[in-house]
Amino acid sequence: MIETPSLVDQYCHGVLRTELGLGTFEAQLARTEGPPAPGTTLFDTQTGFAVRRWCPPLLGLEPHCPPARYLARRRELGVLEAGRRLLRGSGITAYLVDTGLPGDLTGPTELGLAGDAEAHEIVRLEQLAEQVADTSGTVDSFLANLAESVHAAAAHAVAFTSVDGVRHGPALAPEPPGPGEVRGAAGRWLAARRVGDGPSDPVLLRHLLWIAVASGRPLQLHAGLAAPGTRVDPVPLTDFVRATAGLGTDLVLLHGYPYHRHAAHLAGVFPHVYADCGAALTRTGARAATVLAEVLELAPFGKILFSSGARGLPELHVVGAHLFREALARVLGAWVTEGAWSPDDAQRVAGLIASGNAGRVYGLA
Amino acid sequence: MIETPSLVDQYCHGVLRTELGLGTFEAQLARTEGPPAPGTTLFDTQTGFAVRRWCPPLLGLEPHCPPARYLARRRELGVLEAGRRLLRGSGITAYLVDTGLPGDLTGPTELGLAGDAEAHEIVRLEQLAEQVADTSGTVDSFLANLAESVHAAAAHAVAFTSVDGVRHGPALAPEPPGPGEVRGAAGRWLAARRVGDGPSDPVLLRHLLWIAVASGRPLQLHAGLAAPGTRVDPVPLTDFVRATAGLGTDLVLLHGYPYHRHAAHLAGVFPHVYADCGAALTRTGARAATVLAEVLELAPFGKILFSSGARGLPELHVVGAHLFREALARVLGAWVTEGAWSPDDAQRVAGLIASGNAGRVYGLA
Amino acid sequence: MIETPSLVDQYCHGVLRTELGLGTFEAQLARTEGPPAPGTTLFDTQTGFAVRRWCPPLLGLEPHCPPARYLARRRELGVLEAGRRLLRGSGITAYLVDTGLPGDLTGPTELGLAGDAEAHEIVRLEQLAEQVADTSGTVDSFLANLAESVHAAAAHAVAFTSVDGVRHGPALAPEPPGPGEVRGAAGRWLAARRVGDGPSDPVLLRHLLWIAVASGRPLQLHAGLAAPGTRVDPVPLTDFVRATAGLGTDLVLLHGYPYHRHAAHLAGVFPHVYADCGAALTRTGARAATVLAEVLELAPFGKILFSSGARGLPELHVVGAHLFREALARVLGAWVTEGAWSPDDAQRVAGLIASGNAGRVYGLA
Repeated sequence: MIETPSLVDQYCHGVLRTELGLGTFEAQLARTEGPPAPGTTLFDTQTGFAVRRWCPPLLGLEPHCPPARYLARRRELGVLEAGRRLLRGSGITAYLVDTGLPGDLTGPTELGLAGDAEAHEIVRLEQLAEQVADTSGTVDSFLANLAESVHAAAAHAVAFTSVDGVRHGPALAPEPPGPGEVRGAAGRWLAARRVGDGPSDPVLLRHLLWIAVASGRPLQLHAGLAAPGTRVDPVPLTDFVRATAGLGTDLVLLHGYPYHRHAAHLAGVFPHVYADCGAALTRTGARAATVLAEVLELAPFGKILFSSGARGLPELHVVGAHLFREALARVLGAWVTEGAWSPDDAQRVAGLIASGNAGRVYGLA
Repeated sequence: MIETPSLVDQYCHGVLRTELGLGTFEAQLARTEGPPAPGTTLFDTQTGFAVRRWCPPLLGLEPHCPPARYLARRRELGVLEAGRRLLRGSGITAYLVDTGLPGDLTGPTELGLAGDAEAHEIVRLEQLAEQVADTSGTVDSFLANLAESVHAAAAHAVAFTSVDGVRHGPALAPEPPGPGEVRGAAGRWLAARRVGDGPSDPVLLRHLLWIAVASGRPLQLHAGLAAPGTRVDPVPLTDFVRATAGLGTDLVLLHGYPYHRHAAHLAGVFPHVYADCGAALTRTGARAATVLAEVLELAPFGKILFSSGARGLPELHVVGAHLFREALARVLGAWVTEGAWSPDDAQRVAGLIASGNAGRVYGLA
Repeated sequence: MIETPSLVDQYCHGVLRTELGLGTFEAQLARTEGPPAPGTTLFDTQTGFAVRRWCPPLLGLEPHCPPARYLARRRELGVLEAGRRLLRGSGITAYLVDTGLPGDLTGPTELGLAGDAEAHEIVRLEQLAEQVADTSGTVDSFLANLAESVHAAAAHAVAFTSVDGVRHGPALAPEPPGPGEVRGAAGRWLAARRVGDGPSDPVLLRHLLWIAVASGRPLQLHAGLAAPGTRVDPVPLTDFVRATAGLGTDLVLLHGYPYHRHAAHLAGVFPHVYADCGAALTRTGARAATVLAEVLELAPFGKILFSSGARGLPELHVVGAHLFREALARVLGAWVTEGAWSPDDAQRVAGLIASGNAGRVYGLA
């Protein structure tokens, strides 16, 4: 039996502080453009079914109970108490929290307290740039403050992350943009932006990535189909990846699905590249074992990291953790049974993926 | 045990009316460019093996009997009687039939009578344009007649379909082409075309898609590797998909394989997008359960539709239906056994995919 | 029980003649850009685990023994004796050897003697061009000598192979480049190259492919993610593939993974296209059965070929062969158990993939 007593969730968000009704809860189960189609519900998804499987027992209900019954119990306990029970039932021992989302979400400290776990901050580059833009009067001061902010963030955050930086992947030049280019792009953005507008200029996004690379902190890049209608096949990132090799900064490819085999390939080829194997499980539910096994095809076992990718609902942290642990035990257990792996190797690799690799990459205690 | 008493084949063609020999039968088993390689036969494919598994018993023979024996029995019964036995043995209760292929194929009414099932027409936009072009003297009359024909077809057909419209996917502009553009493209096509030439101009194809969208009928788009040497990854269709959201017209992504995970993603993100999970099973035979399970990763269960994709041979309707039902029972049954899904949920989802979703999307009785 | 007494390795390289230490052995387990990341080892990969599973027993050790113990035993036996035991334990009865790699690797004759098996040469087009360039004084003599060398090689080699020719896939024009273009490209390359520089000009590479096509020998094209950071999705090769149809030359798509389903599709559509199903198994280890099954979805069973893709270490020939045989027996055996395939069909198809198809395609005795 494979065991994973420590579990580092290397990429997640905080949870909502407000009480949720059936509709507002449902809307957090998937990222869509628009409401569910008439006659359908987002509870009828792998994520919805996984929530109904794993979460009701943590609140004292039977697995698979109807959504309305679950929501009633959740409100009965209150969002705080329900959140505590759920997070503490997840088995996650450390949360790395991307704080760059808008909305009333708990921060790392609050999440850690609720879940009785360690917690650390991941700084989102786009949000950092917005904050700096809000308080900088000129292009020069913006660029100077940006460099300073990244430097300061590197001192307390465990990692940086970028969602938009890689959307221009195929065009991503393999070197930092020149100072003139950056000044021009920054000037255009500052002149045109309204509060709340993130940077979208490819040159500016590229500049952000490179100052993060220079910080030495691991840089998490969103790949795959995570964002609605966005596709980031990680293979076209190869030139950027190659250009950042040997600089001492690790790159972590998040999510990946349905390009997770491609992400695993890059983790196999480049010493400084790591592959996430968790966020996709939260989405694929009963198929988690297969998706995990696909990551385990090409990625070296020392290069794979777990995450829940959860946002908004503590139920998603629970589901991510339970699906991962069950999938890992099933996949590695089957390989042991078949004689393909030794029991000792399987247990050792499980520990690496659950927490050992993350501890090493992020310098956790 | 999962049961699916109703089964709507949401995309298929009619069957050939002529007696077939070993070679002419074999040629219908796959879509190839050229005859089988020397020393090989198209019976040695997943489709060929699935036909030999499921069809001989419906004609009174043992499963897996040699092709020559099967063909002899088929001729002994005659193409009509063999077709009736096969179609009635498929378990399909409603056929939606794309009538836009050339060749001596049965139409919806004849197919429905042979199979003792409901049958409805799907109108292929390219063929409609050809028919209108054959009988229109000027660009103006062509365009007016085309609009009229689509409008008229929408009154009796259950859906429109387009094969060529999405081949230009990555370049597919997210709005209808302007009237001047359309007139220019139509003029060039009408001047150059010979009878039998379909529209191939991207502007004209785009115009066709948009007048179909305006009709309100579901629009089926061919994705994946269905056509020889053609690749339609549905992700680049995102801009078109987003532009058609909220107009009241559903888009159905047919086939999908090997991009079925990508198609399922789009069905998850956009309320008006649906994913086919059947035609690929007819091609992948013994692997049907895995391919179906891959669609079930990201697609909401209310957004998945069955089809056989069959053309020419009633054996392909049989194979599509049997592979689907067996795969569905196996995949959902395993999830129930593992405790991931409840038995009630599994039975309910099976009914949605087999017929419930199609009934709702196409407005079937 | 599925049996495969003959096994043709249709694509591999020779083995190193030097004694290896732990580090030099490890470096042969994967193709990476740079050394393993700190705290990780390439033994912690599917290939590393598969080597530790299958190879120690062939040298008298227990499966899964630690790498250091295995290497000590290997050195104790000596590289020659260890190589003989490993190769003879692989069950491979014929090796087709790409001799175009630099380094002190055994050639086909030596590999065949060590492994007590047939062996044949595959000529790598890029290396042939380099050799001709080294000894040709002018563009005219280079081009004439090149044509002559390909012609001469076709008389003794079983196939040609090209690694770089398909990297420019999407731009690969579907006809040979014109004589003027070729002269220009050859002139530029000859003027600029230093000894050891391979041809990288797309026109020159395209010329190489087409003179190989004209030779009538099977042409093996590297597809998939085999080379670090290189991506060759075979679908964009469709125009080239279509242009070479009917010329009497077969194309073999090597490796394929993670585009092996796409390669299988091309093998299904075009009579002269074949799909490799082996090299990817050496990389994916415990996942070999699934990867093999994915190739078996669309590729006709007469169009699938085994290879180990091994280079440098006889352990990789062993692993390729054992993983393949076990995966084939498991996948086909399960289909027989489920009733999807008949036992006779499964045994027949196993023989085709293991050796029958290769014998026919390469004209082996």
